[in-house]
Amino acid sequence: MAEKIVMRAVTSDNKKHADRVREILDLKKVTGLNLISGPGAGKTTLLEKTIIDNPDLKFGVIEGDVYTTRDADRIEKAGAPSIQLNTEGACHLTAEMIETVIPKFDLDKLDFLVVENIGNLICPSSFSLGMHHRVVLLSTPEGADKILKYPLAFHTADVILITKTDIASAVNFDMNIVMDDLKAVNPKVQPWQLSVVSGDGLDRWYGWLKSIRQK
Amino acid sequence: MAEKIVMRAVTSDNKKHADRVREILDLKKVTGLNLISGPGAGKTTLLEKTIIDNPDLKFGVIEGDVYTTRDADRIEKAGAPSIQLNTEGACHLTAEMIETVIPKFDLDKLDFLVVENIGNLICPSSFSLGMHHRVVLLSTPEGADKILKYPLAFHTADVILITKTDIASAVNFDMNIVMDDLKAVNPKVQPWQLSVVSGDGLDRWYGWLKSIRQK
Repeated sequence: MAEKIVMRAVTSDNKKHADRVREILDLKKVTGLNLISGPGAGKTTLLEKTIIDNPDLKFGVIEGDVYTTRDADRIEKAGAPSIQLNTEGACHLTAEMIETVIPKFDLDKLDFLVVENIGNLICPSSFSLGMHHRVVLLSTPEGADKILKYPLAFHTADVILITKTDIASAVNFDMNIVMDDLKAVNPKVQPWQLSVVSGDGLDRWYGWLKSIRQK
Repeated sequence: MAEKIVMRAVTSDNKKHADRVREILDLKKVTGLNLISGPGAGKTTLLEKTIIDNPDLKFGVIEGDVYTTRDADRIEKAGAPSIQLNTEGACHLTAEMIETVIPKFDLDKLDFLVVENIGNLICPSSFSLGMHHRVVLLSTPEGADKILKYPLAFHTADVILITKTDIASAVNFDMNIVMDDLKAVNPKVQPWQLSVVSGDGLDRWYGWLKSIRQK
């Protein structure tokens, strides 16, 4: 019984913080994105490219990692303010962490606050961070069988990006498996394929970002 | 205070089960391997190839996944007995789960019991499963920066396999970064590079397996 109460407290606590984060973003007309994927699916690389290719869109980035500030350093170099959040062991970010670091950004100058979650397809799926959209990435070398293996991540996704399509044939990636499995897991979302290396599919992603900007 | 006690109880409980698993394996002269990596690093593909290429080595495989029996089906097709363990949400396997399914294998007929852990570079690192060796895989498309980002996984590894070397240049994988970061995280372990597609480096992996067989 005691454990169950603790779990509830944590969940409702996270929801409270997530609601507060959302209120702040809406007040400032900043669109929040929560990026989720396994390690090395290309979240940081896509963000770098997106920031560089779209100087008219103003991004602030919260970089989640267990350790290191490597990703935040990369984002700052690409030209956007970035804060590194290290969990030192924990496998996901919480809304309270986001609420704590938001004051470090000048939201009046931002169109987007992007949270790059910890590289993990399991734990981050259960925690709302108060963002407007959840974007889940699957890279072709990870294999086409991952939708059913990590259904919660893909079920709760508003946008699904299939990344690294430039090496899809080299790694025998079968898009038909993804499409079939998504019919069961998240039939409303059509995955978008893209590659930062070849540039294929980036226009659609950029177009979507422009369409959801609030300022 | 109460939470700390609960954590200790869980940990000591896992250790108790891990010790029992190890006793069973030692009694039967079966070598236990715990395979850890992020999603899609190639654990199942390496196991399939290893089973097919080494008919003289007898493997039993416990396949850990959040959902689906796809990997156990693949292993059975490759010719080894396999049990699928679905955690339905949990991000790692525990020694108690392993102890529960071990009786389903005929250990007298096995040289190796291989546990393919949940695809996750964080949670599985903290739980001993009673295996003799921990093998951690990093695939080249995940990127060379992952050693410092997930230090516990690589720090506790007895063997580190860099997989998918056939596409290393296509994904700009820099092995020097891995070597540098391992000096800080796990200086005793020299990573082995291999590719199931090209066959490069498999001999070393097979040679090591033969060297640790107990029967």
